[in-house]
Amino acid sequence: MATDRRAEVTWNGSLMEGSGTIHSTTTGAIGEQAVSWPNRAEDGPTATSPEELIAAAHAACFSMALSHALAQGGNAPEQLDTSATVTFQPGEGITRVALTVEGRVPGLDADAFAQAAETAKENCPVSKALASVPEISLEARLAG
Amino acid sequence: MATDRRAEVTWNGSLMEGSGTIHSTTTGAIGEQAVSWPNRAEDGPTATSPEELIAAAHAACFSMALSHALAQGGNAPEQLDTSATVTFQPGEGITRVALTVEGRVPGLDADAFAQAAETAKENCPVSKALASVPEISLEARLAG
Repeated sequence: MATDRRAEVTWNGSLMEGSGTIHSTTTGAIGEQAVSWPNRAEDGPTATSPEELIAAAHAACFSMALSHALAQGGNAPEQLDTSATVTFQPGEGITRVALTVEGRVPGLDADAFAQAAETAKENCPVSKALASVPEISLEARLAG
Repeated sequence: MATDRRAEVTWNGSLMEGSGTIHSTTTGAIGEQAVSWPNRAEDGPTATSPEELIAAAHAACFSMALSHALAQGGNAPEQLDTSATVTFQPGEGITRVALTVEGRVPGLDADAFAQAAETAKENCPVSKALASVPEISLEARLAG
């Protein structure tokens, strides 16, 4: 079954001097979120941004895909600690997503974990949707 | 200057029986968020999901791009009301993003607004990153 997830944004004014609010989503879980150009394109942000939201989406999706592959192979992970860092270059766009994952996976060796992680990076739905991003990198290792 | 935005996710267990938490982001604005497969792939979700986060990212990014184009043309918008709906088909992936926008833009006619919105859909950084999604649709109209 296909599922739909929706978000609504209101924006007032120009890009540089205006601002917006993510004010409604399907679940409401993330609450109301301010967005603005300085918070997106400058260091020291205090509000979320498209890139931060995509980082959260990609880290979650990659974790799901990897947990599924490991469990199907008979080695469900005790824990996966994943990060995604999305790089935004104003005037150019989203230039990179850097994924890292550290896994506690009983019974699996480092090579098999690295291979499963690489496959999850290639095939998770968000990676596929983001295939036009110039670089998606991955560092994977077993804990301990 | 390029900016980095990061999110961290911890996942425990298999995909179907396990669950995860988005527990840290660059700004912390979205707080801690639970994620799970049922909340992603079934109706009636109570927690956010990769697709909901991408919907928020895309609606915000599209709004920024459109506000910028309108302001550069001399018609900064009073208000843009944007929605993004992301469709996820388990086993297939993210199959569609449907954008809608209603604008209050003094001095602009409907054709010029529709053209600016179409350009923003084609060129906003998140649209470009999501270019591999099979369909990105847009409905644009002036309020009134």
